[in-house]
Parts: sequence; structure tokens; C-alpha cells
Amino acid sequence: MIRLRGGVPLIELERSGVVESVHTGHLLVLAGDGSVRFAAGEPDQPIFARSSLKPLQAAGLLRAGTDLGPAELALAASSHSGSPQHQQLIADELRAAGLSEDDLECPPDLPLGEVERRAHLMAGRAETRLAMNCSGKHAGMLLACLRNGWPVSGYLAPSHPLQQLLAATVAELTGGPIPVTGVDGCGAPLFATTLTGLARSFTRIATGRAELRRVAEALRAHPDLVGGTGRAATRLMQAVPGLIAKDGAEGVFAAALPDGGAVAVKIDDGAARAADLAVVAGLRQLGVPAAALDELASAPVLGGGRPVGVLRPVVG
Amino acid sequence: MIRLRGGVPLIELERSGVVESVHTGHLLVLAGDGSVRFAAGEPDQPIFARSSLKPLQAAGLLRAGTDLGPAELALAASSHSGSPQHQQLIADELRAAGLSEDDLECPPDLPLGEVERRAHLMAGRAETRLAMNCSGKHAGMLLACLRNGWPVSGYLAPSHPLQQLLAATVAELTGGPIPVTGVDGCGAPLFATTLTGLARSFTRIATGRAELRRVAEALRAHPDLVGGTGRAATRLMQAVPGLIAKDGAEGVFAAALPDGGAVAVKIDDGAARAADLAVVAGLRQLGVPAAALDELASAPVLGGGRPVGVLRPVVG
Repeated sequence: MIRLRGGVPLIELERSGVVESVHTGHLLVLAGDGSVRFAAGEPDQPIFARSSLKPLQAAGLLRAGTDLGPAELALAASSHSGSPQHQQLIADELRAAGLSEDDLECPPDLPLGEVERRAHLMAGRAETRLAMNCSGKHAGMLLACLRNGWPVSGYLAPSHPLQQLLAATVAELTGGPIPVTGVDGCGAPLFATTLTGLARSFTRIATGRAELRRVAEALRAHPDLVGGTGRAATRLMQAVPGLIAKDGAEGVFAAALPDGGAVAVKIDDGAARAADLAVVAGLRQLGVPAAALDELASAPVLGGGRPVGVLRPVVG
Repeated sequence: MIRLRGGVPLIELERSGVVESVHTGHLLVLAGDGSVRFAAGEPDQPIFARSSLKPLQAAGLLRAGTDLGPAELALAASSHSGSPQHQQLIADELRAAGLSEDDLECPPDLPLGEVERRAHLMAGRAETRLAMNCSGKHAGMLLACLRNGWPVSGYLAPSHPLQQLLAATVAELTGGPIPVTGVDGCGAPLFATTLTGLARSFTRIATGRAELRRVAEALRAHPDLVGGTGRAATRLMQAVPGLIAKDGAEGVFAAALPDGGAVAVKIDDGAARAADLAVVAGLRQLGVPAAALDELASAPVLGGGRPVGVLRPVVG
């Protein structure tokens, strides 16, 4: 059993002059030359980076020769919010390949985005595979199978040639062996890494050539497809020119700048609200102007609908 | 500035053989005679107990002479899930007193319960004051003002005679002075206490006479009104005869048995998923049969819709 060792306080919630909650975790900031600019906690312990691995998996899909345009590639690397646009693009992608939503092996779910989930429910709709936030990744996986003549059914098995290729891609980009392969929320194989490995892989994607460059350009061109309304990854990429950024479940977040500077975060308790702010604290240490990040650096805490406190970083 | 000092690991999330997230916090278990059965973390530091204070505030409403039947009293002590039944009962209570939803000074919100929020949205409804989880408490506050000839408008001001009476009630039941009065999510004054004070107040309510007995009996008679579908407080009271239990925002939970045994929890990071399990771990230490708590003692972690791990206590 691998067991997360707790980190240090990264984010705190103040209400009415009382810090009532604290998020501990691990934060690694790498300069463009690969040196450690800042480290808190234990960035070299094994973690599941969850959906922050998707840009790596998207690079693997390109290595498999999969024909993905920038929008399909951004969706393959996304945890999309499940808007009608997200769902339509993925449905079109599947149909063009002679496939349908029924071929997706991710579980049915409601849209991940709060705004998008609300609209979905108000339209009288239920959980679907297409609305599930990983459906763009799964569509890309299906297309990779078709391209290579691999079995389409059962594409999530760790022994499937596609997953073997994705494992090799993740191992190469993170620079290390994969200590454990688990099962992600969507049923796909989940390759353990470290924050150091995750940050280095984002540096490689943000500065690389060939398929890595295509992944980075797709993220930069379509931040709205990588997340959705109000989501931190989307807003960060819209605010900071050239940034690539991807969140993951259980408090993971990774980002990198065109010069190779990179940030990787894991919140011990898994809270997205904390990871969203910790990655911004890391970007500030890389010299990203505060003005570009101001609205993303903290969040108001409300009492009766009015601000009475703040969720803010305690590092950086 | 009062600043929460972090506690010890209470709950961990395992996925595929990796503990990927950990929740630290504070857990206090008092035996029926008031002695400490178990303590983890620092139960004597000041915290905001948030909605776990509502049973205390409900007792204060009775001290103010407010005419509340068992259902209205349970709703006054509730963070209800916002079902049509919850909303209708509170609307009826207001109407019978010559008031309406417009008199509530809590902010409009969607139902707190996941199932209830979904039904609300699918019915095409938006945020309302009635649907807000604290509306039963606010309705009770309004009735207390009418009963005493106090101003109805502005009943949330800390200087309002009602809030002064509720502060005195909280101070008396928790056995300590109130180090800070803040603003709760609903806009009401929020009286700081400690886990020790919170646990002792639940012992007093579970074993007391007069208005305390009425509060305890209302909670026991109407667990469905105190929470809602699938909510831990509701399920615990349904599973354990005579138990009173109340959750609060930011990872607070308190419960007490008819013999006075009590449990109080604060999760450092504020996660409800962890508080829900930690209170069960505490109840087991009080001898509540495991069979009664089995389904509430841990939660499955899913991968592709199938269990691949578990959220479980690491204490108790």
C-alpha cells in the first residue's frame, strides 16, 4: 500500500477573522531551466495525478497516429464541463469515425461544470456518457484504436495495446517508471507519478516539438474546450499568454509556461478549491504578473451573500 | 486573528491500493458521565461550529417563548435538503404567522441536498430563500421576534435582542464564553466555541429537561426534516435509536446518545465527506453496534462506476 504523506499548509479559509479551515499539500515550482524554484511538502512521493495526466495521454494518442484536429485534441486532454458545445463536438467526432456514444466506455454522468450541469438538468436531461467530463479522452482513445486496427471494445484494459502505448508515453514524459497502475474515475488506467514527474512532463509539453507541440497549441487555442465556464484551467489559459494548464480530481493541478517554467500541486484532502489557488501561487513565483492572476489568486467567503472572509494562499 | 491548528489523520481515501488523499482533523468522544473517552487533535481550540449550533439556537428560540411544534422545531434545527416538503412546511409556518418568504433574511439558494437540488432544477426552479438550507432556522427566528414584539426586520444583527438571547443560550450550553461572533453563510451571527463545548452542549440537549428535551425529541421524531435524502445526520438518527445528530459546514459534525455520550468533529479542510465518517468512528467508540452503522462507516470509491477503493476512518 502506497500512502500519501501529508504536506504543509498551502491554502486557508478565513471567515470573520477566524481561519476556520486549512488545506495542506505539496507544491513544486520549476524554473524554465528545470531547477527547483520552490518546493513545499514532498514532491517526490508517488501520487495519482488523475486528469492532469490527460495532456500526456493526448500526446500518446498522437504517437499512435490518431487523426485529431486542434479541437478534438483539446477535448482529448480535457475534463470538459459538459456544455452542449462540448457534447456536440465529441458526438460529431465519434460519428465521423463511424462510432457513437454507445462505444464510449466511460460511465454515464452529469456535466462536471456547475453552470453546465444546471443547464443540463433544466433541459430535463439525465446522466450520459457524452456528458461525462472524460468523454473527449475516451473518444480520442476510440479513434486511436480504429487507426491502428486495435479492438475497440475493451480499450480500457491495461493490457490493451493502446493503454500500453499511453503508459510508455506517460513514463517517458514524466521521466520515471510508473510505480502503480490504478483505475481512474472514468475506468481508464491511471498511471501513478510524482509532482516532480508531472511538472517535468508539463515543461516538455510546453516546450517540445512534434506531437508535444501540437498538444500545447491545442490547449492554448481552445482553453474553453479543456474546461468550461468559470473553471480555473480555462480562466488561467485565457489570462496568461502561452500557458498550458490542467486540473485533476482529488486536488491535483499542473501548468507550464512557454519558457518551460512549471507548477504542480497536490492538495492532501483532494479539494479543488485549494488546488485552483495553489497553482496560481506557484505561477506568481514564476514571475507571471499579479494583474493577470488577480481574480484567480483568492476567492471570497460569503455570509448572507456578502464577503465576510477569503480563501487565500499561505505560500508564495 | 484566530487560526485553526491542524489535527491528525482521521479519514483516508484509497484508490487502487494507493492512499491518494487524507483528511486531518479533530475528534472528541465524551462518555455519558462527561469523561473523555477519546480525543484526537486539539478539541479545546476555538472553532466555528456552523450549522451544528442550530439545535442550540433552536433551544434559544424556545426560551424566547416561540410557539414551535415538533416539525417546526426540527426545521429550526435543520440544514434541510430543500425538498418540496421542507419548503412547504416552512412556507406554511410563515403564512400561519402572517409572514412570507420575503421576510426571510437568508440569501436565496438552491437546495442543499443533491437529489433535492436536481429535482428543483428539473422543475425549472431557481434560487429562493425558502429553498436555502437555513430557512427553517430563519422562520423560527422570525416567529420569536413576533412573539416578543421585537423588530422583525433586521433580526440578524448581533445587537438584536433575539441574537443576544441566542448568544447567551449558546454560551450557557457550551459552558464557555464566546471568543468571537462572526457571520454564518446564511447571514446569521455565528458564535465560536470549541469541540469540547459543542460535545457538552449536545450531551445537555440529549439528556436535558424542558426546552432541551423538546429539541431532542423533535430531532428524534423528524430526522428527515433535519437533513434529507441520503444525508448522514438523517440516516444516523434513523439508524440509532435516541441519537441526535447535526452536521455543519466546513467539516463539523456533532451527535449525542440518550445516555449523554457525545461526539464532536472538525475536519481541518472542511470536507463533509470526512466529517460524515469521522462522527461514525466516534459513535463506535461509544458502543453503538457496528451493524447499525455499517453502511455509514465508509464509502466506496468508484472507477468506471465500479468500486476500486474506499473512503474510510483511520481512527476508532
